[in-house]
Amino acid sequence: MSEIRPIRWQEGKLLLLDQTRLPVDETTFVVERYEQAVAAIREMRVRGAPAIGVTAAYAVAMAARDIRASDRAEFLSALEQDCVHIRAARPTAVNLGWAVDRMMNVAESVDSAKEIPDRLVAEAEEIHREDEAINRLLGDYGKELMPDGGSVLTHCNTGALATSAFGTALGVIRAGWESGKRFEVFNTETRPWLQGARLTSWEFQKLGIPATLLADSAAGMLMRQGRIGCVITGADRIAANGDTANKIGTYMLAVLARENGIPFYIAAPTSTIDLALPNGDGIEIEQRPPEEVTRYGGVATAPEGVSAVNPAFDVTPHHYIDAIVTERGIASPPYTESLILAVNGGN
Amino acid sequence: MSEIRPIRWQEGKLLLLDQTRLPVDETTFVVERYEQAVAAIREMRVRGAPAIGVTAAYAVAMAARDIRASDRAEFLSALEQDCVHIRAARPTAVNLGWAVDRMMNVAESVDSAKEIPDRLVAEAEEIHREDEAINRLLGDYGKELMPDGGSVLTHCNTGALATSAFGTALGVIRAGWESGKRFEVFNTETRPWLQGARLTSWEFQKLGIPATLLADSAAGMLMRQGRIGCVITGADRIAANGDTANKIGTYMLAVLARENGIPFYIAAPTSTIDLALPNGDGIEIEQRPPEEVTRYGGVATAPEGVSAVNPAFDVTPHHYIDAIVTERGIASPPYTESLILAVNGGN
Repeated sequence: MSEIRPIRWQEGKLLLLDQTRLPVDETTFVVERYEQAVAAIREMRVRGAPAIGVTAAYAVAMAARDIRASDRAEFLSALEQDCVHIRAARPTAVNLGWAVDRMMNVAESVDSAKEIPDRLVAEAEEIHREDEAINRLLGDYGKELMPDGGSVLTHCNTGALATSAFGTALGVIRAGWESGKRFEVFNTETRPWLQGARLTSWEFQKLGIPATLLADSAAGMLMRQGRIGCVITGADRIAANGDTANKIGTYMLAVLARENGIPFYIAAPTSTIDLALPNGDGIEIEQRPPEEVTRYGGVATAPEGVSAVNPAFDVTPHHYIDAIVTERGIASPPYTESLILAVNGGN
Repeated sequence: MSEIRPIRWQEGKLLLLDQTRLPVDETTFVVERYEQAVAAIREMRVRGAPAIGVTAAYAVAMAARDIRASDRAEFLSALEQDCVHIRAARPTAVNLGWAVDRMMNVAESVDSAKEIPDRLVAEAEEIHREDEAINRLLGDYGKELMPDGGSVLTHCNTGALATSAFGTALGVIRAGWESGKRFEVFNTETRPWLQGARLTSWEFQKLGIPATLLADSAAGMLMRQGRIGCVITGADRIAANGDTANKIGTYMLAVLARENGIPFYIAAPTSTIDLALPNGDGIEIEQRPPEEVTRYGGVATAPEGVSAVNPAFDVTPHHYIDAIVTERGIASPPYTESLILAVNGGN
């Protein structure tokens, strides 16, 4: 099996595997200007917190390439302007702002304006490489949580498609499987955007890991029947106390897991941890268009004119989370202590 | 607004409002033989426990009409053969078996074979009329549970479309609204078959009751945010201890409601109560085709060859249920006592 690479940088262009078209078509969306990268993030042609971070880094590099100013202060000011738009592409995932900050810090460290664009391309490529390395480390730590002979449930898509490669929660499942453990895998379809059905099922097929799809609402019944041994999901933003914003439905799974005595794990790189937020109350939750709920593939699923709410994420309070896997080890409660250690370099 | 009538008996034919086509098309599916009624139930052209009961009653009447035997014993034996097929149309809703039993009891009470068909048509029409009267009574009792100024969440479709008219849980919401109470209404889309998005949203539009649609997995977040004041759903089978089989996802909503201190109600006619079952463990859960999860409206939502589980119902243990509304009043815990009273005529 060849590795899935949703993001490629080639001859100054960003090539995205268009996730709005999967699993029916495997097509490449070509990005040549930063505004197209912003649109691709907003339209979810690329999605998943780490993949959004990598894409945003290349967006900053492309923005810098198009700035004509030769005065350093003027250049940085123009770049910061563009970064405002990049940061606003989607509000919930912290990795986006994290990547933009890191790129701006590099830009500000360069003495001459004309050297900035090349340095930013190099930095974006570094973020891109690092993300894969981080995911592989994270998988290596997390695989010990995977059962041998039991079963695991995951939600949304947290595989290669959500990252630069390998994945976070899906990467933990993969690492467990590649270590020789055998267990049943279940994945939710993840309404309304169907990241689970469209993307996760596709990745498990490519990986040769047998997985069974279910409607989100069927997870509770399977847990109650004893068919789910543990749950592992990704994260879009983790507050200092461990409260975790992730795909809508994660909170529901965490409550049901606790009710049924099933461990519930989060897997995310430390770039997803936002120590500036004391708890999850301050996390902005993106509201997506109602049409994602009322239509599918051009077909109306509800009558014309129906109102719909469509929050893209929810917040799972830390007390439902049994462990948070990062590239620096497995953080346990109390997270107010373990997450600071993880962010600062060790557990 | 004219009342929605999903089932009509006209000149010896059963006219079903085809629920596989809503909300896009309002078409009538004409049933002339009992085998077509069985197929219509299986294919969910008609669905909802009470509506399945009424349709099954007409199916028995149509089966009787086509039996050529003049000997009474031979006639009843042939009819019982047909009833085996009718009972097997869908396994979970008890109303189906309840209606077939009632029809067979009438057939057995008639002295002459040639009088049976007309008596059975009259009995099916009686079951049909009774169901509407029962629903109106049920709504009248249940409306006191509806808030004035708060909000209510419902799941699946339990309106006129699921019954002969008026509905059960949706009927309670309607009765509350028609009594002058004003509250926000939320309804889940109800994957995989989208009874909520396709049917409940359509009914609320026809009734002029503003309602907001959500993905099933968003219900937990809304509850945690304090946006849901109570939850009310229907039922397909209620065991003697109050354990309730209902549309997949009901258990999840009940657990989340309890976790968030929100009352959770069931609304169902007493024909849904199965006192022969001590608890929910013995309820057979129908497994529907995986294609309901992997395709929508002819469009693939998952890659070819993906496995899916598709349980149509789940069982909510009685201890999550705060009240069960029937046409004979509101049953409270302990249900082992209150449900016997309800079935036997009073609360």
